[in-house]
Parts: sequence; structure tokens; C-alpha cells
Amino acid sequence: MNIQPDEFSLIAKYFQRSKGAGNDTGSAVSATSQSRSRRDVAVGIGDDAAVVIPPSDCGIAITTDTMVSGVHFDDKVPVAAIGHKLVAVNLSDLAAMGAEPAWLSLSCAFPAIDEAWLAEFSRGFFAAADYYRCALIGGDVTKGPLTLTLTAQGIVPADRYLQRSGAQPGDRIYVSGTLGDAALALAGQQGRVNVPEQWLPELEKRLFYPTPRVGLGQLLRNQATSAIDLSDGLLGDLKHILTASKVGARIQLDALPYSKAFAGSISGPEGWRYQLAGGDDYELCFTIPESRCGGLETLALQAGVKVTCVGIIDGSREMRFFEKNQPRDINLDGYSHFASRD
Amino acid sequence: MNIQPDEFSLIAKYFQRSKGAGNDTGSAVSATSQSRSRRDVAVGIGDDAAVVIPPSDCGIAITTDTMVSGVHFDDKVPVAAIGHKLVAVNLSDLAAMGAEPAWLSLSCAFPAIDEAWLAEFSRGFFAAADYYRCALIGGDVTKGPLTLTLTAQGIVPADRYLQRSGAQPGDRIYVSGTLGDAALALAGQQGRVNVPEQWLPELEKRLFYPTPRVGLGQLLRNQATSAIDLSDGLLGDLKHILTASKVGARIQLDALPYSKAFAGSISGPEGWRYQLAGGDDYELCFTIPESRCGGLETLALQAGVKVTCVGIIDGSREMRFFEKNQPRDINLDGYSHFASRD
Repeated sequence: MNIQPDEFSLIAKYFQRSKGAGNDTGSAVSATSQSRSRRDVAVGIGDDAAVVIPPSDCGIAITTDTMVSGVHFDDKVPVAAIGHKLVAVNLSDLAAMGAEPAWLSLSCAFPAIDEAWLAEFSRGFFAAADYYRCALIGGDVTKGPLTLTLTAQGIVPADRYLQRSGAQPGDRIYVSGTLGDAALALAGQQGRVNVPEQWLPELEKRLFYPTPRVGLGQLLRNQATSAIDLSDGLLGDLKHILTASKVGARIQLDALPYSKAFAGSISGPEGWRYQLAGGDDYELCFTIPESRCGGLETLALQAGVKVTCVGIIDGSREMRFFEKNQPRDINLDGYSHFASRD
Repeated sequence: MNIQPDEFSLIAKYFQRSKGAGNDTGSAVSATSQSRSRRDVAVGIGDDAAVVIPPSDCGIAITTDTMVSGVHFDDKVPVAAIGHKLVAVNLSDLAAMGAEPAWLSLSCAFPAIDEAWLAEFSRGFFAAADYYRCALIGGDVTKGPLTLTLTAQGIVPADRYLQRSGAQPGDRIYVSGTLGDAALALAGQQGRVNVPEQWLPELEKRLFYPTPRVGLGQLLRNQATSAIDLSDGLLGDLKHILTASKVGARIQLDALPYSKAFAGSISGPEGWRYQLAGGDDYELCFTIPESRCGGLETLALQAGVKVTCVGIIDGSREMRFFEKNQPRDINLDGYSHFASRD
């Protein structure tokens, strides 16, 4: 290992300021300094492992996502956004299970120590972690190509977590927020789409700072029959629900929710491509019996999240598309997006 | 992302055979196929996150370690050993907390898909995971420089986990197994020490296939006042106990346990260097009141682990060394080993 002790101290400094990082870096970060933010952290950073005390009769939802430099982000991404996004993409997975985020473990490989980078990364990381009341309880720091792995854990009632497998024919298909913004921002940056300058910042905000639907996920516990987070795009992700639930879907293309910035930049079938298969939305897609739709829409509005019905589950085992209630062919192959999650 | 869908299927194949990998790879691995090995896994691989149901009134110990190609392993390391070691180093951390290993999340970045490599890696990984009755509950697979991160979770009674901070003056200092074997194997491979050919395989086995002291860690719950796992070497790791416990130590150099292969290869002060600061032992170091020593030694023997008293805690805040009860100067700086954990 070529990371020197003083460099470990530097790293500890940036993660200690807000919470600390690295069970095994031998840092001077004390357990108690970590426990302040959550009373259920019995041992935080600074021992061989962290110890958390979950509430009785609860399940623990666990997810992990890796972001690699040059693959999931590049020099054009603000460094604080990398920290934010690493937290957000993991919490989005927890939201899709109906879990309340709680504890984070961060593993980093750094090719060299860059203090400015660490300061910005940890700023973005802790802004997101603090907002969602998560504690960083440990991690690992090694030398290597810039790779960031976060494992996030959340608390969920043992019998009320959401899965992909419960959708029933007749259930309504909903998505939260708007679709396609992040993918359109990327296309605009790369010159694949001519995005008007006035709209690019708003779209880029959605790309750089996705909003995991943590509150909505918990509201859905008693309501939804299935849920998934939209990382690869509605088409690919809804397909996981259909497969797991052994059902089909009818999608109303003209119901797909879009932002003002999106509508100002693109429309029609070309827009659908970004809404259906662009990816990086980090919204929730869920199914819910018709009888609960009104109540759910009210609850979501109170929680500050717009939810939109975009279709209905049927027994066909197929995904079909409609525009103004007329069947519309979508070439699924052309839309399929099999990117790994980031 | 350049990892294609058929490549995801390949990866799923190698991890599915024994347990599967990747919450979010969209693999066809069903949740139920993962739950067989542990009844407390409610949702395994194949949803947005895993869900586990811990026993009531228990704490969860959580640790994470990253291994990077070219930093923590190279082409000379058997690929199955990489899989084994990734599990072992994490379980060693759990052992030091007195926790019973339970659930594993694996994140991998691969530059390309190498089926032979995956087969060997997963063989070593699952041999270790199965031996210690851990379930792989999820993970992530992305394209990138070969980097492997494992997050391991274990179950521990909420009021009986071990920490580094409880050592008291008068407590005896113990280590499990033998020290220095792995570091000597590495030195032998690199030609820094002339290790007799007859002993190298045995030493290399300790380097490539470390044995986390999982059973011993759980035995220590009611006995030890502090514990740590030996990854960086006794000197550096015991120092963490002394710092956390605000105590000092007297170490008997001639009491340091060694293997036959070690004794056949090196001796005296040069040997101490590997025993004190070589690292990669993955033994436990712990402290225990004198009154419990006899009982503990018997318990450990019954569990098939040798434990050796190597010194005593005192109130000095220093670490002092003795040979045949005579003070012996050890240049701490020369021995200090600040490698990052692997």
C-alpha cells in the first residue's frame, strides 16, 4: 500500500468532519462521535466493525452500488454531485423496498489523495446522508483506480416491505415525478440533442442530483402491490415487475409525466425514447389497486411528490403501448437499455 | 456501460450456481433460490434491495473491505484464493466483534468478462461463505478496473459485542494461532527472505487462505475485555487496543507463537519483525482478566484453536518488550506497518 499514514489522517479529516469513514483505517475518529446522529449506532467508525441495534420485529433492507471513474462519472460531473449521487442511488433502492434509510458503509479506492476532491465529495455525500438522516458507520480506504462503493441499510417492518412480484391484473401503474430529464441532460451535454440553453441547467440538476423518493417509498408500504426504482428507464424496470409478477402492462404514452424543461427541449416519439429508456430517473414505479388510487394520490401530494398513473396491469404477459387510447408500436429492442446500475 | 446483457447472464451464472450476485443486475435469479441457505433472508438477490430479518434483541455488526487488483493481489495469487480472502478478511473483522457472520453483499468492477476467472473466484468465495454459513444476499456488477468490495454483516447479542476499548491493567494479552506466516510467505516469494522450499507451501497457504477466527470470536463474548483482528501485525493492531483502552502493554517476545514452517525458515529478531509487523495474520488479539485465562484456554482448545498469552496490560500507556523477562528495545518506527487493510 502506498497510501501513507498522514494521507489516512487527511481522509479521516474529510469524513470525520461530518461523520468519519473507515472502520479499519486506524483513524482517531471515536465511536461516540459517530453515534450522535443516530441513537441506534452502538459502535461507529473506529473498531473492527460497526454495531447497530435495529428495532425489534423489523427487517433490514440492504443494497450496494458501485460508481467507477470513467464509467459512471467523468470530469464534467461536479465532484459534490458524485458524493450526492452515490448516496441517492442507494437510497432510491431502499425507497423501492419501502425502507427507511439508516446506516451507510463507504469503501473508496483512490489513486492519490486530492484534498480539494475529498472536500467536495464529502460535502455532497454528507449533505445527502444528513438530509435523509443516515449515519456513516464505517468503510474502507485503499489505493487503487477511483472506485466508490456504498452499502446502504434501511429499516422496514418485517411484513410490509415492497417487492417487484406483487402486481395484479387491474392494478394501476404509477410513476413519481417526471421521466427523461436526466437522460436528456446527458444527451444535451453530448450534443446528441439540441437542448435550449435555458433548460439545460434544470435538466442537469436532475442528472447530477437525483432525488431518491424515500418518503414516498414508506407511504407505499400499505398501498402498493409492487415497486421498483427507475434507474435504467421505465421500459426496462417495469419489465422486472412484469416478470416477477407474471403479468403484462398497457402503457399510455401520452400520460408519461414530463417536466417543463423536458417539454421545452423535445417532444413526441423522440421524447418517449428518453422517458421510456433513458435511465437515471431515480423515480419510483409502482402498482396499486384501483380502489386505493385516490387516497394514494392525496397522500403523495401531501408528501410533496407528484405521482402519475401511466398505465394498467393486465394478464397478457406483454407490454403494449397506447397513444390517445390507440395501439402504438414501440420497437422494444431499439429502446432496451441494459446499462448496469450506477 | 459496456457490460452487455449476455455478460450479465454469465456473471449471474457463476454467482447463481452457489448463491447469485447483484440486486440490480436484472438477473433472473429468484429471491427464493437465495433464501435456502439462511431462513432469515426474506428477500435475496433479484429485487431492489435484499431484506433480512434479524433475531430480536440483537445487534448487527457491519464491516466492509475492498481488494484492488495490483494492490491487494496480483497474478501470482490463485484466483480462488482471492475469493476466499475477500470473505475471510471481512469475517475476521466480524470475529473480532464476537459476531456470528450472516449476510454478504458483493460489489465487483470487472474490466472484461473472463469466465475462467469468474469460475475460480466464485468457487473460492462460496467455499468460504458456505463454510461459515453466510448467504450472499446481493451486490452490484459494473465495468471498471478489477475491484472487489464485500460488505459482511453478523449477528451479535446487543449487549455482548467486543470492542477495542475494554482492556484493563492486569489483563492478559492473547493471540490465536501463529504469527508471521503470511508475511514470511510474501517475503519468500519476493526473495527478501530465503525460505526453504519445503516450508513455502505451508506458509503460502496462510497467506492465500487465511482462517478467520469466527468460532473463537463468539467464545470470547463472555470472556474478553477487548479484541481486534490482526491484519496489520500485532504491533500496530495491539496499539489500537491500547489507545482505545488508555492502557499500556508488556510483550514477551519469546512467547510469540510460531508455526513449524516459520521456525524452519527464520528465527530471532528477524523473525520477530514478521511476527510483530508483518501483517495478514487474520488471527485475533484479545485481552482477558487473569482469572478467566484457564477456562478460556480450555474452551479454545475444545474449539480447535490454540491461544497463547503473549503479554500483560499495564497502566503505562506504553508498549514495552521483554525477552526472557529482560527488557528488549524494539524500534517501533522501524516496525510500524501502515498498510491499508485488505
